[in-house]
Amino acid sequence: MTKVEIYDTTLRDGTQGEGISFSAKDKVKIALRLDKLGFHYIEGGWPGSNPKDLRFFELIKEHRLKNARICAFGSTRKPGIAPSEDENLMQIVRSAAPVATIFGKTWDFHVEYALLATLEENLKMIKESVAFLRHNNMEVFYDAEHFFDGYKANPEYAMATLQAARDGGAARIILCDTNGGSLPGEIFEMVSQVSRTLDVPLGIHCHNDSELAVANTMAAVQAGAIQVQGTINGYGERCGNANLCSVIPNLAFKCGVASLPEESLAEVTELSRFVSEMANMHPMNNQPYVGGSAFAHKGGVHVSALLKNPRTYEHIEPEKVGNRRRVLVSELSGLSNLLYKYRELDLGLGLEKEDNRKVLEELKELENQGYQFEGAEGSFELRLRKAFHGYKEPFSLENLKILIEMRDGTVYSEAIIKMNVNGQVVHTAAEGNGPVNALDNALRKALEDFYPDIAGMYLTDYKVRVLDEKDGTGAVVRVLVETGDGHCSWGTVGVSSNIIQASWEALVDSIAYGLLRLETKDEGDPKKITGVFRGKC
Amino acid sequence: MTKVEIYDTTLRDGTQGEGISFSAKDKVKIALRLDKLGFHYIEGGWPGSNPKDLRFFELIKEHRLKNARICAFGSTRKPGIAPSEDENLMQIVRSAAPVATIFGKTWDFHVEYALLATLEENLKMIKESVAFLRHNNMEVFYDAEHFFDGYKANPEYAMATLQAARDGGAARIILCDTNGGSLPGEIFEMVSQVSRTLDVPLGIHCHNDSELAVANTMAAVQAGAIQVQGTINGYGERCGNANLCSVIPNLAFKCGVASLPEESLAEVTELSRFVSEMANMHPMNNQPYVGGSAFAHKGGVHVSALLKNPRTYEHIEPEKVGNRRRVLVSELSGLSNLLYKYRELDLGLGLEKEDNRKVLEELKELENQGYQFEGAEGSFELRLRKAFHGYKEPFSLENLKILIEMRDGTVYSEAIIKMNVNGQVVHTAAEGNGPVNALDNALRKALEDFYPDIAGMYLTDYKVRVLDEKDGTGAVVRVLVETGDGHCSWGTVGVSSNIIQASWEALVDSIAYGLLRLETKDEGDPKKITGVFRGKC
Repeated sequence: MTKVEIYDTTLRDGTQGEGISFSAKDKVKIALRLDKLGFHYIEGGWPGSNPKDLRFFELIKEHRLKNARICAFGSTRKPGIAPSEDENLMQIVRSAAPVATIFGKTWDFHVEYALLATLEENLKMIKESVAFLRHNNMEVFYDAEHFFDGYKANPEYAMATLQAARDGGAARIILCDTNGGSLPGEIFEMVSQVSRTLDVPLGIHCHNDSELAVANTMAAVQAGAIQVQGTINGYGERCGNANLCSVIPNLAFKCGVASLPEESLAEVTELSRFVSEMANMHPMNNQPYVGGSAFAHKGGVHVSALLKNPRTYEHIEPEKVGNRRRVLVSELSGLSNLLYKYRELDLGLGLEKEDNRKVLEELKELENQGYQFEGAEGSFELRLRKAFHGYKEPFSLENLKILIEMRDGTVYSEAIIKMNVNGQVVHTAAEGNGPVNALDNALRKALEDFYPDIAGMYLTDYKVRVLDEKDGTGAVVRVLVETGDGHCSWGTVGVSSNIIQASWEALVDSIAYGLLRLETKDEGDPKKITGVFRGKC
Repeated sequence: MTKVEIYDTTLRDGTQGEGISFSAKDKVKIALRLDKLGFHYIEGGWPGSNPKDLRFFELIKEHRLKNARICAFGSTRKPGIAPSEDENLMQIVRSAAPVATIFGKTWDFHVEYALLATLEENLKMIKESVAFLRHNNMEVFYDAEHFFDGYKANPEYAMATLQAARDGGAARIILCDTNGGSLPGEIFEMVSQVSRTLDVPLGIHCHNDSELAVANTMAAVQAGAIQVQGTINGYGERCGNANLCSVIPNLAFKCGVASLPEESLAEVTELSRFVSEMANMHPMNNQPYVGGSAFAHKGGVHVSALLKNPRTYEHIEPEKVGNRRRVLVSELSGLSNLLYKYRELDLGLGLEKEDNRKVLEELKELENQGYQFEGAEGSFELRLRKAFHGYKEPFSLENLKILIEMRDGTVYSEAIIKMNVNGQVVHTAAEGNGPVNALDNALRKALEDFYPDIAGMYLTDYKVRVLDEKDGTGAVVRVLVETGDGHCSWGTVGVSSNIIQASWEALVDSIAYGLLRLETKDEGDPKKITGVFRGKC
């Protein structure tokens, strides 16, 4: 079976997409997830271009990766200077990443118009930059920018630039369709030609400006490329990059080309949604393989045939990529996902049919309302415990008021809260940096005498997602909260058309789950219902 | 120059997409637009399947189309009856459409599992149904459902079904990749084989389940198909159909294959947005050719090259499809993005060094605070106008209060606002579905007597992003608001550690910019400072 390497550039080229930005910590979270799934290379950023990317390379050093090698991106040196005088190349070296990926000019027109260098100097820049990074003990990948346009315009010069990269010691040469304007047939032809004449393994890097990035990437693999570059969900500059969530399953299921370990394929859907959550982008419903509609059947003819045999209207089984069939007539859809999920929780719930049905109904109802438990394992477990084990939070709200006043450009926020905690009424108030912060402060104040451990838990993330955008500020919102205690962290969720109520739900869950965790951790009584902790440690 | 026919099925297959539905009147509007642009065939619906589709065929008869022929969709007759006894075929005849498009089974597996008929009976159903519609003076197109899967499984039988359609008198035979699982190479091979052995012109109908619908469609055209079926924006069942907004420009600009008249190509972007408006779907920002980001440049390297020559990072000129270049200002961008941006705004700012420096400093400072103007051109322009042209909003806030009360699980939100509008003090209040909605309502209420145009502007999106996660609910948040007036939309932004203040800023900008837009549009005084409108239209 043929095998290709997967090179992910979500953290670099992906962030060139409009509306996409990640904090350095988000980037680390994504990199760890990609590593876990067996991605071979992760391009972390361009250390010479901005401080956030630099920070990523510092943070990622603290982690031991199992599979992936981290790549630092940059360009060939500036014209007329030595590589060691080039700040951009020096930042790549300082990043201490094991791999350097640098791009250089292939297209004579670009050398003239964009680079303002001679054709000869450009060849030197490529060779010397690659060699310099090699001498600094980095594995070097060379991105031949605009390769296909350049090759069409001046094939001799384009090949000379690749030869320069090879002479400098590049371990891979990546042919880039930077403007996204090429066709699969052209890509196949040109990659074939290059692979016949150059003794360096080739990679492919495509953009989606003609809606052909996936097809072009596959054509290149067919022609001999052994490295595939792309991004999760196809995020990237303009129309995006080749979408790895489509390329990887296409190669595996349709071309017999292996890339990620087989067991990782079933996690592609979850990966896609995790990254869109991190990017705070709406998941694309009709996205192939991983979209919510990818295996959703609406036509009556289709549904009736599917009931007879799913192969009638599905090109692959949705489970292969961790997605699921959605058929409105069948309430049994998604049962296996659910079973999987709560087997994992090990709550001692029998796997009886009646239980399955009850959990499924509850979950369907919640999903209809807009809940999503992917980043909110805490809330998911609390709901299961409530449904099957009579769990109740040890505190409940009587009522709350929030006052916000804006005067002379300054905002004052105050929350007044009346709660029942372990049978006692607590009535207190707190100020905050905004209404949700005031609420959080008041809730903690009301509980801290009873549960001093709360002082050690703090919110690490607070995300708001508008679900039905069309209603503007009146729409239903989902609030995702992440809470940590310095070692572990857990996610909780709230949904409401009122941001305050949604935040309240997520905050209550975050504390209730934190307390439950301590409780089940401290007791150590094997007869007690314990949960495998679902957060991240 | 080769020529293909464009067959649009947005009104039928498009509506199988999740969340897509059109009223019969919407369908007529879309059909008229497609006709105007020179589409050759428009599939209006399946008259035998629902009353809305029937209504369309009645309504469209009242219009005289210039270019397009209307097609009524349906299936071959049921097993064991005469065509004239088949209600579905009779409805096609009654639709009085000039063209009938019927689908039938190609794949032996489907005949057995879905149709529950014998292979022989299926052939009769195809031939007799086509012949029956021909006798009723309709032009008949035959959709060979699951052609590619069927041909792989049993090529002799697959070919026999096509032969049956030919013998019945089909004017076109359309090869369908119904499950969307085929690859371009396979499609090319199989279409080539069929076109060598069958003397009926071929069409192609692809689905996007492998993100290959556009590539597959083009492969079929290369192999001899002369009709292309697809939908606007690729709407359709599951992952959608072949996206005509990509196929048409790809064929025209990259393959030398003509379809629509040349002057229609420059209207593809408008068509795409019109149809998404009709479908009440958010336009896909990164959609090739027609998306708001399709020619949007974020990386500093790209922008500095574009200033020298746009061809450096664009595969075609955006004007060719009626789109336009946009330069995004973000942390990834350098001075060149900014220069480009305000050249474009044409605010009469000289390009003097001192100005550049001032704008850049202002912008850097704002970015440090967490502003991002990528999706917020409205706020960006307002800030430039304030900095250099003494622009002031025609209204200002004196103070505001928000009261939120949660009791018995229900939340009440109320905003009280005191403003100065054109020198008059307005003091009013409004309730809302959450504090930000209450604020939005109160602001509009305070302004609508003075600016009745506000009633035509509505919020289409509201996004909240927490910037420094470490501080949890006390962190700085960025609120992005998108506002539309039915034709155009514009983004505005607010940043604060208080979500209410950030939302207030974005809301104020959204209305101020909307008013400014109307003003600069209506006046037409060349001496007045006008801005090219920077939103998406």
